[in-house]
Amino acid sequence: MPDEKIKKVSIVISKGSLEGVYPGLIMANGARMEGIEANLFFTFFGLEAIIKKKMNKLKVATVGNPAMHIPSLLGILPGMSAFATKMMKKEMEKLDIPPVGEFIEMIHDAGGKIYACKATVEMFHLTKDDFCEQVDDIIHVGKFYEVSAGGEIIFT
Amino acid sequence: MPDEKIKKVSIVISKGSLEGVYPGLIMANGARMEGIEANLFFTFFGLEAIIKKKMNKLKVATVGNPAMHIPSLLGILPGMSAFATKMMKKEMEKLDIPPVGEFIEMIHDAGGKIYACKATVEMFHLTKDDFCEQVDDIIHVGKFYEVSAGGEIIFT
Amino acid sequence: MPDEKIKKVSIVISKGSLEGVYPGLIMANGARMEGIEANLFFTFFGLEAIIKKKMNKLKVATVGNPAMHIPSLLGILPGMSAFATKMMKKEMEKLDIPPVGEFIEMIHDAGGKIYACKATVEMFHLTKDDFCEQVDDIIHVGKFYEVSAGGEIIFT
Repeated sequence: MPDEKIKKVSIVISKGSLEGVYPGLIMANGARMEGIEANLFFTFFGLEAIIKKKMNKLKVATVGNPAMHIPSLLGILPGMSAFATKMMKKEMEKLDIPPVGEFIEMIHDAGGKIYACKATVEMFHLTKDDFCEQVDDIIHVGKFYEVSAGGEIIFT
Repeated sequence: MPDEKIKKVSIVISKGSLEGVYPGLIMANGARMEGIEANLFFTFFGLEAIIKKKMNKLKVATVGNPAMHIPSLLGILPGMSAFATKMMKKEMEKLDIPPVGEFIEMIHDAGGKIYACKATVEMFHLTKDDFCEQVDDIIHVGKFYEVSAGGEIIFT
Repeated sequence: MPDEKIKKVSIVISKGSLEGVYPGLIMANGARMEGIEANLFFTFFGLEAIIKKKMNKLKVATVGNPAMHIPSLLGILPGMSAFATKMMKKEMEKLDIPPVGEFIEMIHDAGGKIYACKATVEMFHLTKDDFCEQVDDIIHVGKFYEVSAGGEIIFT
């Protein structure tokens, strides 16, 4: 008997760097393209990806990431993160991967649900007005488990 | 037919920074509040959160996290991490989110299970005495899969 | 009625630091040892772990990781990451945990499947020749969900 197809993914985005946000968006988008239900739950620094004023200004982390192959002493130079960010955005554009704001709009238009974590919203003193219009609701963890039932939880 | 409610979550905590540890604790606590079974498995640097001498001294990472909006050159100053840590702790206190040690006690008192990863314990030359009393057992990966059966695995 | 045993784990490795890659490898290996089906999916910087020229040169991140207990000002010194990397490798050797390349070979020999993320492969302009021979296929997210059906998805 073949395995039952995945019917839902609930993806938590907890980091605010560009390389921290994209994997979750790509997985949510990939899910919708396969007809899999997709929930995105933004928490902690990941919340930046749905804050209107910040979502299109996320940067690549150049320090603390040895895979970038930028020596630590260079990584701290103010221009390095901006440079790496520009490079990654350019490569993503070539692959037709849209900027964060547009990507979230696309996923939402395709039926993906966008949630903000209530505790983080309170911790950072944010209000519904700070978020992009695609945010469906601000929910607590208990509610997140409720909407995730019957699927896979993926914490990124 | 509605999705079957989640009945168990097994959360792996693998990072030792304050913002790396809290999401897992909040998700475990939220699970218990909803009557969902919760297992916490501390591995790699996450182990610090259950080491008596370290659990209440965890810090926010200010470098390698562009979402902190602290320029790299400032982020490396010795005082910045301490400052960001103090700020986050203060905001969490306002939300009634307890310090790490107290939070683990609370989750354990509510029936959550606390496990340490055997391989990491050996790698860092630790013994049972180094850990807070809430640690139920030191287990290997195979045993972790066994206790996680029938639920969601969430790697943070 | 006891919980049904986990029968499959699909582990995403998204980071390129040594401490970012090992947890996923250890979980995949632990799964195979218990007779659990294991898929490894390398994406973003995690791809470095299956690139022939890079897989055995991964480093520990010493900045952006307060759990390393290396002050930020020291952490950026060129030698620190190399030093921490050497220490970790030595401790792992004592525990019979093999270097990355050998570990992947071992997991693959034990029946674990190794996949590279198609979007990342394109973003970094890589070809099949850049990868170690254990890579079974280069797949997109939709295919990943397909092979993950009936198991747990673990994003590391």
